Amino acid sequence: MISQKYKKMLEGKSVIRQLSEFATERGKAIGYENVFDYSLGNPSVPVPREFTDVMIEMLKEKNPAELHGYSPSLGIPSVRKKIADSLNKRFGMNYTENHIFMTSGAAGAIAHAVRCVSDAGDEILTFAPFFPEYHPYINLSGAVLKVVPPNTEDFQINFTLFEEMLNEKTAAVLINSPNNPSGVVYSEETIVKLCDMLKNKEKEYGHEIFIISDEPYREILFAGVKAPYVSNYYDNTLSCYSYSKSLSLPGERIGYVAVNPACKDSEYLVSMCGQISRGIGHNCPPSIIQLAVAEVVDLTSDMSIYERNMNLIYEKLVELGFTCVKPGGTFYIFPKALEEDAKVFSQKATKYDLILVPGDSFGCSGYFRMAYCIDTEKVERSLAALEKFIKSEYGI
Amino acid sequence: MISQKYKKMLEGKSVIRQLSEFATERGKAIGYENVFDYSLGNPSVPVPREFTDVMIEMLKEKNPAELHGYSPSLGIPSVRKKIADSLNKRFGMNYTENHIFMTSGAAGAIAHAVRCVSDAGDEILTFAPFFPEYHPYINLSGAVLKVVPPNTEDFQINFTLFEEMLNEKTAAVLINSPNNPSGVVYSEETIVKLCDMLKNKEKEYGHEIFIISDEPYREILFAGVKAPYVSNYYDNTLSCYSYSKSLSLPGERIGYVAVNPACKDSEYLVSMCGQISRGIGHNCPPSIIQLAVAEVVDLTSDMSIYERNMNLIYEKLVELGFTCVKPGGTFYIFPKALEEDAKVFSQKATKYDLILVPGDSFGCSGYFRMAYCIDTEKVERSLAALEKFIKSEYGI
Ligand SMILES: Cc1ncc(COP(=O)(O)O)c(C=O)c1O
Ligand SMILES: Cc1ncc(COP(=O)(O)O)c(C=O)c1O
Repeated sequence: MISQKYKKMLEGKSVIRQLSEFATERGKAIGYENVFDYSLGNPSVPVPREFTDVMIEMLKEKNPAELHGYSPSLGIPSVRKKIADSLNKRFGMNYTENHIFMTSGAAGAIAHAVRCVSDAGDEILTFAPFFPEYHPYINLSGAVLKVVPPNTEDFQINFTLFEEMLNEKTAAVLINSPNNPSGVVYSEETIVKLCDMLKNKEKEYGHEIFIISDEPYREILFAGVKAPYVSNYYDNTLSCYSYSKSLSLPGERIGYVAVNPACKDSEYLVSMCGQISRGIGHNCPPSIIQLAVAEVVDLTSDMSIYERNMNLIYEKLVELGFTCVKPGGTFYIFPKALEEDAKVFSQKATKYDLILVPGDSFGCSGYFRMAYCIDTEKVERSLAALEKFIKSEYGI
Repeated sequence: MISQKYKKMLEGKSVIRQLSEFATERGKAIGYENVFDYSLGNPSVPVPREFTDVMIEMLKEKNPAELHGYSPSLGIPSVRKKIADSLNKRFGMNYTENHIFMTSGAAGAIAHAVRCVSDAGDEILTFAPFFPEYHPYINLSGAVLKVVPPNTEDFQINFTLFEEMLNEKTAAVLINSPNNPSGVVYSEETIVKLCDMLKNKEKEYGHEIFIISDEPYREILFAGVKAPYVSNYYDNTLSCYSYSKSLSLPGERIGYVAVNPACKDSEYLVSMCGQISRGIGHNCPPSIIQLAVAEVVDLTSDMSIYERNMNLIYEKLVELGFTCVKPGGTFYIFPKALEEDAKVFSQKATKYDLILVPGDSFGCSGYFRMAYCIDTEKVERSLAALEKFIKSEYGI
């Protein structure tokens, strides 16, 4: 018989999926350039030219049997070394290649990190608003995801509720800064307070509580904003990184777990990731992509477009009277909807060809997300639609 | 605390790993060209020129944000369609794109297929000799791998023992033909007998027993040998394919599950694979590799070298008095060792710089595997070493 567990997961259709299908249909009718689709986190700026050049060069010059050969199960050593060196230089760490495990994006990184530091029934805490895919990443590992309700004031951490939810079964805390969907960057004060609290709880419970730091937007920071590197504040940290957003390579599926060398049992964790991989038959990101990324490890796509888009949208939202925390990075913004049910709000927006994602699935009802990784020219056109929507529907 | 389950998997070192480390060390000392390394199934012939050309063309011509964008979670529809069409043409099937799920090689395909058709505690039967990674693919899914002892006569199926092991808890049977490590291709007679037995047992138990057909060597067939396409004989079949061997792309991690349209609940299975993927954060093989493979879907690397190597080795083995079933495909051969403990036999062989893998981990002690995906010139030189080894150690 087919698996009842996975069959059950097919029930219920995601709101994002429905919106995206609407956008596709509507695009067929009026031209996709006229649908203001803010639903998807698919980067719109191209990968750096250097990546493409190095790919072409390898394809032309390298022995194909070697170029496309099996990568060692933890990743290609020279690639892991370059990543370690780059992190050391930027964040004053002392990683070696043995602390880096190559993964299929941040998704793969989180799925491995969670399995490394928890056993069945353990709890992993995360903070709303949060990336909804945390549900399958964690719940299918055997651990249990628990969501700390949001601090809607500034989308930093709600420490009161967090402290109440910490308990003996807490194996790890999963944080994401710069944050999807809020665009907020956790301040140094937030990180220090979080780490202090966890260190105390580790003593109280007599076991480690790991921080799994989900950092796909680490490189997308706006003017004047700094994102503290979590491993600088907390030994038991696993950083989950992805080149999906910083190099605009989401489809090529590459990222890594970086295990803090000061982490408890750090000498086992990367090899354990290799064992986890065997179970799902993953066996590393593609060889050629590993090799190419290693050559551009200190570059990023041109991120200035995201900041320009953010400023345009933020100013318009404020002008229209929205309550909205200004993003410090990413390509997301998370304003408060103009009525209690953000699903109804988003539904009304579709009449104006605006695709806005209600915050419910991010654990934060009453808010909505806009992913502004689209052309600036389209953002500009969308603002008139937004204004029309708000004035017609809410008479503001 | 770190996961005890995965930490435990680090114990014990694989024999193949140890041999491969020996080969590397020895290579440093005497030059790798002088080590006759028959341990690894890494294809030695290059990918077809057309693949490289299409990769370069896409990198030069395509909009990078689209080329490297997220693939839909089941795979790129046009790619799945091309694969379905190709299978239909070759094997008279009626797949549509909705029956194809893109995976990270055969490894990913098997790991997904197993999860689709079993729940925790269910049994999956396979036949020795078998690929040792079936252990983690299956056991980490929650199902339990049971191995039917080999039929060493001809390495077809040992039906007597198989029938004894079938029971109510059997959810699926995992077969691999052409076979790693034996090189043997299951005859039509074997497939028909297997399918008949399973159909009867399905009736007896009142539930499906799926065949998971692991087919990475489907395209590597020697003169006059035909490999029956299992779905033509049995409705409840999931084919697990990989381009690792046929296109010499093992490092790029691409393959698929093809769900027989006549399979029970076939309309759910591909979407269920998508759900399974979410849990491990895999999200599809790399976009660019999907697109490139779709353009060469009916090509293979030049396989004639493997047949030439096989004939050279087989003839020498027979001349030296080995008992050996002649392979019908793959790049493996699996002779009987000249003493009971093949580990001791392989250990002695290393003195002659011959790296042979004992059959124990394939579930077939007393035999050893040679992976002859190496240059023919090297095969030729190795035969002298083999002769010297046998004459000196066994006085033959
Ligand atoms: C917060 C967050 N974590 C993880 C991921 C998954 O990233 P990847 O596509 O690199 O696996 C995403 C993707 O949007 C994300 O926003
Ligand atoms: C029988 C068999 N199944 C599965 C695999 C895994 O194949 P892939 O590397 O395409 O995941 C292999 C690889 O050697 C194999 O020999």
